[in-house]
Amino acid sequence: MLERITGPRDLDALSGDELEALAAEIREFLISEVAKTGGHLGPNLGVVELTIALHRVFDSPRDPVVWDTGHQAYVHKLLTGRQDFSRLRQRGGLSGYPRRAESEHDIVESSHASSSLSWADGISRAFASTGQADRHVVAVVGDGALTGGMTWEALNNITDDNDRNLVIVVNDNGRSYAPTIGGMARFLNSVRVTGGYRELQEGSERFFGRLGAPGRTVYRATRGAVRGFVSRASGNQDLYSNLDIKYVGPVDGHDLQALEHALRQAKEYGRPALVHVITEKGRGYAPAENDEADQFHAIGQIDPDTGLAIGGGGGPSFTGVFGDRIVELATENPRIVGITAAMLAPTGLEAFANRFPQRVYDVGIAEQHAVTTAAGLAYGGLHPVVAIYATFANRAFDQLLMDVALHRAGVTLALDRSGITGPDGASHNGVWDLAILQVVPGIRIAAPRDEATLRELLGEAVAIDDGPTVIRYPKGPVGDPLPALRRTPEGVDVLAETADDGADVLFVTVGPMARIALDAAALLAEEGITSTVIDPRWVVPVNEAVTELARRHRLLISIEDGIRVGGVGTRIRQALRDAGVDTAVGELGVPDEFPEHATRGELLAEAGLTAERIAADVAEQVRGTRIPIARPE
Amino acid sequence: MLERITGPRDLDALSGDELEALAAEIREFLISEVAKTGGHLGPNLGVVELTIALHRVFDSPRDPVVWDTGHQAYVHKLLTGRQDFSRLRQRGGLSGYPRRAESEHDIVESSHASSSLSWADGISRAFASTGQADRHVVAVVGDGALTGGMTWEALNNITDDNDRNLVIVVNDNGRSYAPTIGGMARFLNSVRVTGGYRELQEGSERFFGRLGAPGRTVYRATRGAVRGFVSRASGNQDLYSNLDIKYVGPVDGHDLQALEHALRQAKEYGRPALVHVITEKGRGYAPAENDEADQFHAIGQIDPDTGLAIGGGGGPSFTGVFGDRIVELATENPRIVGITAAMLAPTGLEAFANRFPQRVYDVGIAEQHAVTTAAGLAYGGLHPVVAIYATFANRAFDQLLMDVALHRAGVTLALDRSGITGPDGASHNGVWDLAILQVVPGIRIAAPRDEATLRELLGEAVAIDDGPTVIRYPKGPVGDPLPALRRTPEGVDVLAETADDGADVLFVTVGPMARIALDAAALLAEEGITSTVIDPRWVVPVNEAVTELARRHRLLISIEDGIRVGGVGTRIRQALRDAGVDTAVGELGVPDEFPEHATRGELLAEAGLTAERIAADVAEQVRGTRIPIARPE
Repeated sequence: MLERITGPRDLDALSGDELEALAAEIREFLISEVAKTGGHLGPNLGVVELTIALHRVFDSPRDPVVWDTGHQAYVHKLLTGRQDFSRLRQRGGLSGYPRRAESEHDIVESSHASSSLSWADGISRAFASTGQADRHVVAVVGDGALTGGMTWEALNNITDDNDRNLVIVVNDNGRSYAPTIGGMARFLNSVRVTGGYRELQEGSERFFGRLGAPGRTVYRATRGAVRGFVSRASGNQDLYSNLDIKYVGPVDGHDLQALEHALRQAKEYGRPALVHVITEKGRGYAPAENDEADQFHAIGQIDPDTGLAIGGGGGPSFTGVFGDRIVELATENPRIVGITAAMLAPTGLEAFANRFPQRVYDVGIAEQHAVTTAAGLAYGGLHPVVAIYATFANRAFDQLLMDVALHRAGVTLALDRSGITGPDGASHNGVWDLAILQVVPGIRIAAPRDEATLRELLGEAVAIDDGPTVIRYPKGPVGDPLPALRRTPEGVDVLAETADDGADVLFVTVGPMARIALDAAALLAEEGITSTVIDPRWVVPVNEAVTELARRHRLLISIEDGIRVGGVGTRIRQALRDAGVDTAVGELGVPDEFPEHATRGELLAEAGLTAERIAADVAEQVRGTRIPIARPE
Repeated sequence: MLERITGPRDLDALSGDELEALAAEIREFLISEVAKTGGHLGPNLGVVELTIALHRVFDSPRDPVVWDTGHQAYVHKLLTGRQDFSRLRQRGGLSGYPRRAESEHDIVESSHASSSLSWADGISRAFASTGQADRHVVAVVGDGALTGGMTWEALNNITDDNDRNLVIVVNDNGRSYAPTIGGMARFLNSVRVTGGYRELQEGSERFFGRLGAPGRTVYRATRGAVRGFVSRASGNQDLYSNLDIKYVGPVDGHDLQALEHALRQAKEYGRPALVHVITEKGRGYAPAENDEADQFHAIGQIDPDTGLAIGGGGGPSFTGVFGDRIVELATENPRIVGITAAMLAPTGLEAFANRFPQRVYDVGIAEQHAVTTAAGLAYGGLHPVVAIYATFANRAFDQLLMDVALHRAGVTLALDRSGITGPDGASHNGVWDLAILQVVPGIRIAAPRDEATLRELLGEAVAIDDGPTVIRYPKGPVGDPLPALRRTPEGVDVLAETADDGADVLFVTVGPMARIALDAAALLAEEGITSTVIDPRWVVPVNEAVTELARRHRLLISIEDGIRVGGVGTRIRQALRDAGVDTAVGELGVPDEFPEHATRGELLAEAGLTAERIAADVAEQVRGTRIPIARPE
């Protein structure tokens, strides 16, 4: 039946039974296909019926559907003419997120949470004011994303101008990646324990729960003042009638008929409405339903029958080493506390939380708060380690600058998934962190190249209490050890050198780029070009030993897995000039564009960041046939 | 009486009458002193009694008081031993914000709104877990700042762990800078119209209002389900009792006794509590109370009797020219809409809003939402102009990257107060915007140098619909026109040149730095060194004409009023290398540190950004006595 669906309108003619059959077929498809490629399985199993209902009730793309944190859009892809999942998240295959280039049904590509209500606010406002008032805009947002401040900023605005067609669907599965945290979640759980969710009053309570602490404060105040409200309400029936977002629900998110009914009600309302849908992450797939920790949020290749991982391996990951090391350090130093933004397991903080449950705080999807509360914790005498993905640090730049750095708070940011990440596509790449964080006054940024340096640098970072420290490391295995030949008195690791008194080329590497530099140096050696390869370990500020070593080389090549524009390479050059060293400098890095989804290797190659390519370019420069350093074409 | 208060504990012995007299004396002091220096008058007149009560009830600095948007801390300064306001906001004088270097009573220095709850969350959590559980933490936050998402992120966390002493004081004056926007404010106004605020039920309603749209949704749901709630509540008395933030209030913020009573109640509660205080901005100063627009939020020098400005002048400001020009452009192009984050008048959007009230949206203090809703508006067919201060753009970096740039949305950011701003201190300087925004793929950044170029560039920016555009301009008067000698075919303005076939030095200037470059070129000419001065107008991406002109000069000097590290100068150098041009490049900019409060001129001089200093350095370089370009010592 799925094959016959070439677009949303093909759903119109299907009977209730046929739709149920379609839903079952989609679940089977997802389990078998995503098992082969890896991807976001759990979230999509939870929204099968919701997506069918949305596409029956609304007329995409005339009615745009905005998916918050777009990893829940696989079913949407299946219903909008995209059913070849064989190369999901691979170069040339389907993206794991909505993508405008794939379909006119895709509107918002970024997968940073909590932005959908702002998008929908803008789109619906524009439609209302440009003669397109009959178009509806739908935002689908998870309960986890509601912990993000952007959603609150948007909700405060959505009420302001009601003359527009805007439907907010809260996909409530009680989870972010981990179970949703905060007062919100505790309240919800209480309600869940006390019974079903069919009655309006319970729905209201649940929605109170969604509002977190302020909602509950209101609830409490309300209980005490119920009689006052009743009398006031009866006397002022219209006082508030135009100020609300209409609330519809809660609705069983796996009951197609109920979903369609609720969505139609919201659609016909003609003003902003919120439909509260209760779904189950991993629905219909036993291994996911039974997995309390993650419910198969994002998986690699698995055996579809058992849900067990296939292959993988590759030794310990940077995440795993971080997770082990932070427990050791926390055991030694009671001042260390951990902060995660709804990603306890993915960032490696789980073992820390298990060992010291009172010392790890999950703040929800709330990076701004994560960083500023860390400044507060530091003021109070602790040393917080904020463990987040590098791409999400972008959300907290202002807080790092104004709350941490201006106050010289001893806060460590542990940035996982830094550099090129690959299959997740543009919005998950950690290629901007170096450029924006290096401009924060007083910041110190470390980039471990292997397991030993990660362990060592994390220890150094948490011992620094007079300003922000950052330690950034990539996705994936730590790889073989890259021991140093020697360490300079200033703390720079020399990984390769040909002579004490200098050489042709000085490679200055950032973290895992050391491996590529060593290979490039070996290739250059075959051509008689001598190189020194150093890893400063702390890449910002620029180590004095870098400038001193540069004096004894003809050419300095910096290699970073962040964007070249504004990268640490530019900072090295400035440091050389400030020190009166006029060695030529070539900065290598990632091009100034959004990487498409592909493997990390494919993207590095495309950026010219391979040993072969670098060796060839450097050889040309050393021979004087070109000036350093042309950008990789 | 004020003179006898050398610290908060001196307040303890005062009688009620003496405290009233002290409050009156403080008001007189503020009006007469701030009239002389300029500063934030209105907000401080509103918190005289509140600050006295806070310092009587809590024991600062043992009990830290965190002031959100610290411009409301003047009274706090007066009560903590700082009574010399004669050089307020001047070099060597008192800062206009809390400042740790001034006093142990100052905790949080940054003046970006909505961060105080996160700070207090962290501090109180740290106290509770490090044997300092008897210390109280107080956050004072305005109702306007509650529109910022950070406060909601914090509130969702503050409920989670109740075993700590945390008091949130909501200073509710119904305003951000302008009256607070959104459902929140409309609801509040309704309540105000219907009566006083003494009764609990009205307090609850007001607090609903504080919650904005979601709060009202709850309120509405509640009304319909009141009976259900009553019955459930009676059967589940304890179900929610541990989940709330205790709510105390509302309290008359100018009634010292009532304030102390409420604050003591919250203090003794032993868990997080919220005290809702109603204050009047500008209280006790007739010109402020009668000023609906701004209530003397921030003033220059004024006549204290009339409230009228003294001096000032200096011709039209960049803000004013922007405000005029956007109206012209919006009149021609119905697709242009304006967005402000609670700063309609300060950003110059007021005339646009008056002329086209349906086309200017005040989203509240909510920069993240401002930028993403703009992406939505662009998707819907409009061209939004987001007018904010440069320093606040830092809050929306991720949204500009992921929502605007990744989607190639035609959104213009108009960044006022860019560059060094001066007296407001570190957190208001717009010196980071160029460095962080230039790394956004596809971005185009314009920097007008005078009135004509601002008018022209704004027109060019709003005509670009395939990606983000930024136009950044400084605080203050536009100054005399700086006409170009000629414009190259690529759009670069040549402001000075000595010969067609090149010269010693090529100055590439960013916006208002053109004036300094012209003066430096004149000084160099006296020494026989020839210069060309160009203003690319669009500074990112680097104009081809810059690289071509560079070929015909010995030295290129870029001058920007942003930080040198990661600045556009580094990008110019990369562009030259990519084009195979090996002209030496010196990048001049602001040092990589937090500027202290001083005048703009003082700070520019300290950064070495004066014509004299630049000419001297460049002369040395041209004569070959040093390599380009040492950083200004």
